[in-house]
Amino acid sequence: MTTKPSIDWDALTSELEGIEVITEPTQIAKLSLDYYHFSPVLQGQLADKRGDLVVRPSSEEEVLRVAAVCVKYQVPLTVRGAGTGNYGQCIPLKGGVILDTTKMNGIRWIKPGLACVEPGVKLAAFDKKARETGWELRMAPSTYRTATIGGFIGGGSGGIGSITYGQLRDCGNLQAVRVVTMEDQPRVIQLRGNDVQKVNHAYGTNGIITELEIPLGPAYPWAELIVVFDDFMTAAKFGQSLSYADGLIKKLVSIHAWPIPSYFAALKSYLPEGKHCALLMIAESSLEPLQDLIEEYSGQVTYNKTAQEAGKGTLLAEFTWNHTTLHVRSVDPTLTYLQSLFPVDKNLTLVEQMCQHFGDEVIMHLEFLRLGGEIMPAALQIVRYTTEERLNEIISYHEANGVMVANPHTYILEDGGMKTVDLEQFKFKKMVDPYGLLNPGKMRAWQELKNSHG
Amino acid sequence: MTTKPSIDWDALTSELEGIEVITEPTQIAKLSLDYYHFSPVLQGQLADKRGDLVVRPSSEEEVLRVAAVCVKYQVPLTVRGAGTGNYGQCIPLKGGVILDTTKMNGIRWIKPGLACVEPGVKLAAFDKKARETGWELRMAPSTYRTATIGGFIGGGSGGIGSITYGQLRDCGNLQAVRVVTMEDQPRVIQLRGNDVQKVNHAYGTNGIITELEIPLGPAYPWAELIVVFDDFMTAAKFGQSLSYADGLIKKLVSIHAWPIPSYFAALKSYLPEGKHCALLMIAESSLEPLQDLIEEYSGQVTYNKTAQEAGKGTLLAEFTWNHTTLHVRSVDPTLTYLQSLFPVDKNLTLVEQMCQHFGDEVIMHLEFLRLGGEIMPAALQIVRYTTEERLNEIISYHEANGVMVANPHTYILEDGGMKTVDLEQFKFKKMVDPYGLLNPGKMRAWQELKNSHG
Repeated sequence: MTTKPSIDWDALTSELEGIEVITEPTQIAKLSLDYYHFSPVLQGQLADKRGDLVVRPSSEEEVLRVAAVCVKYQVPLTVRGAGTGNYGQCIPLKGGVILDTTKMNGIRWIKPGLACVEPGVKLAAFDKKARETGWELRMAPSTYRTATIGGFIGGGSGGIGSITYGQLRDCGNLQAVRVVTMEDQPRVIQLRGNDVQKVNHAYGTNGIITELEIPLGPAYPWAELIVVFDDFMTAAKFGQSLSYADGLIKKLVSIHAWPIPSYFAALKSYLPEGKHCALLMIAESSLEPLQDLIEEYSGQVTYNKTAQEAGKGTLLAEFTWNHTTLHVRSVDPTLTYLQSLFPVDKNLTLVEQMCQHFGDEVIMHLEFLRLGGEIMPAALQIVRYTTEERLNEIISYHEANGVMVANPHTYILEDGGMKTVDLEQFKFKKMVDPYGLLNPGKMRAWQELKNSHG
Repeated sequence: MTTKPSIDWDALTSELEGIEVITEPTQIAKLSLDYYHFSPVLQGQLADKRGDLVVRPSSEEEVLRVAAVCVKYQVPLTVRGAGTGNYGQCIPLKGGVILDTTKMNGIRWIKPGLACVEPGVKLAAFDKKARETGWELRMAPSTYRTATIGGFIGGGSGGIGSITYGQLRDCGNLQAVRVVTMEDQPRVIQLRGNDVQKVNHAYGTNGIITELEIPLGPAYPWAELIVVFDDFMTAAKFGQSLSYADGLIKKLVSIHAWPIPSYFAALKSYLPEGKHCALLMIAESSLEPLQDLIEEYSGQVTYNKTAQEAGKGTLLAEFTWNHTTLHVRSVDPTLTYLQSLFPVDKNLTLVEQMCQHFGDEVIMHLEFLRLGGEIMPAALQIVRYTTEERLNEIISYHEANGVMVANPHTYILEDGGMKTVDLEQFKFKKMVDPYGLLNPGKMRAWQELKNSHG
């Protein structure tokens, strides 16, 4: 499927009357891309990708109209939120219409522990409202201030908060979605329960999400701390012990080997030369017992803000997860990163082995999280990039030693994550997007299986 | 140390003027005992144990006076809350004074996530107040309605809520305690942070707790459910999957092999003949995704109450943990129980092995919990008691196969739990109770080491 060169864009646009349409090339260029440039591999593959026009529907009804028009003209449609992804999740490989969801930013309702929102609501904006009721998002990416909830579900997998609630794909972390189909007569399908997995983290390849029901967590007052350590493995083991401490309420356990902290300009005065650091979000009521744990690992607290203070200025979360990479690259754009998951191991043997093996070429950045009920160290290592070949060698070495790498240097859905075709998502795509118009080129299963499965 | 026969009780009592003293024998008998009779072994050892008098101080100042008088007369002092323990934690082996804390039931303050209370406040009474502020106790025993917070800390280890917050001894689950010493001049010591472990779960052998700071959890609306299964191992594996699901908010995952449910008279209509059951407390916002998990394991929901409905009548929690044993024994007093912890194993192999090995002699009752950050199945198996020798064989078989048994058939602190002497607790006792007057006979370390360690 490629966009037919014969598309009559004027005719198509005229059918979208009443819906905001953007045709200005600079704007289209901006709304065609994401943070794919974190990857030197994707830089070469995606820099020139552009949609033909951008639509900004403000309601599900308008989305249905856009879908119908795209089907009629057989034009690709790629959905985007705020475009804060890192591997081209929302970059249109084959032109066509970009559906920007940011005008669909309504909050339908917030109940204790559960909310219903439109996809384009920004995470931070939602949280501000939710916190007034004592609740907040269970997890968020480091792009919290700008990213949308729909984009997070479509392209994300977890983040700040995953140390308590696990991953977005874990049972209970997404309650329901409404999606608009790309059938000849587009319709709305509601998916509840396990059925949400059909579109969860599918890059918008198999339905246009128009509403989500998301569970909430209690809004603890989160203190923010930086703790520094002389030795990286001590910092890592501190992070692990904190992660295993069920009595300490936490939202973020982010561990950075020197010299990563040297790239955090705004935090410079809290990050002594040569020291490894932990960036933490801890419930204020857990701060006192945390002190014992910090002492046990000979950590030194250099930064300690109450929730109230933290809310006003710098957010430590904006130096963690992939914001770490952002800061590092803003100083040295030759650097890139990996995404990986280390096996459960109380001694962190493989973490240490990888540090020793790669030295300064791969600098360790751990994010502790829960996955399937177990605590695991995930890593977004900073890589001193030389060639794509060497990058692949680094990935292969990790995999050969038992580290699972979720390769962030591919825009293919299956290649980035679990490495296997998700048949449920594929089957759902066959039903809702029979012409393969949604974000074409991203789902490998579609290319390989579309003609072979019934 | 035994109570000197020459104690002048009248003189002693006169020094307690202004403090409530109970001397009536029936009352003393009642206030000398606990639920030790769950154990046929302890029945023979403890039934005749009595204090000489009971005091009910109403303040820390009065506790200081009681302590001074007991030291002066060299009389044993045994602290009790509501006496809901199961292995004689508060039964005076050598007579003396019983210090009943139930008049010290003040709530000093409740802040978000943290509260300060006197030891005699009842768990349910506290929770009622805390819930008005959106918070509640992180964990509670099944004796929630009657037990005191001080008694739970002194004699308990975890319970309902431990599936989320772990054990009372885990870092962060007890913030601070004040204790009165039994020195020549009794004084008050405040223990904070890790230092609380000196008196945590020490049966009141090394200090009289007069105030506690306890962390709280958010007060979710907890729905209560009974789910029944045709096959026990399916019920067990359902419980395990639920326990591992970080996206499902839960407070209780209690699994009962038939015929245990046949003893739950009040729930009879929800417990079909021959079916194994799960008793659950789940946040209302997690009920919908829970349905998928129930279906996956072919469970059948027979009882489903909202938090509001559940609060009014029967509490399912009162059929779990050691209330299970209570109900079973109220029908058949020849039955008793074990307390055990199975190793982490996703296949629950040992659980199945023990079920097969013992058949109807040891009936499986699992309580899933977190311990040190990991999900584990604990068990309070119902045992068809024949002889003490056979009981010990059963325990030995479990231990030989890798099941940790916290023997509930001993009143000795170290023999019931971790099987090792806690040197910190022993050293603290040497300091605060130099005459060994506090709950004498319970701490093995004191008997064995009091003259050997500096």
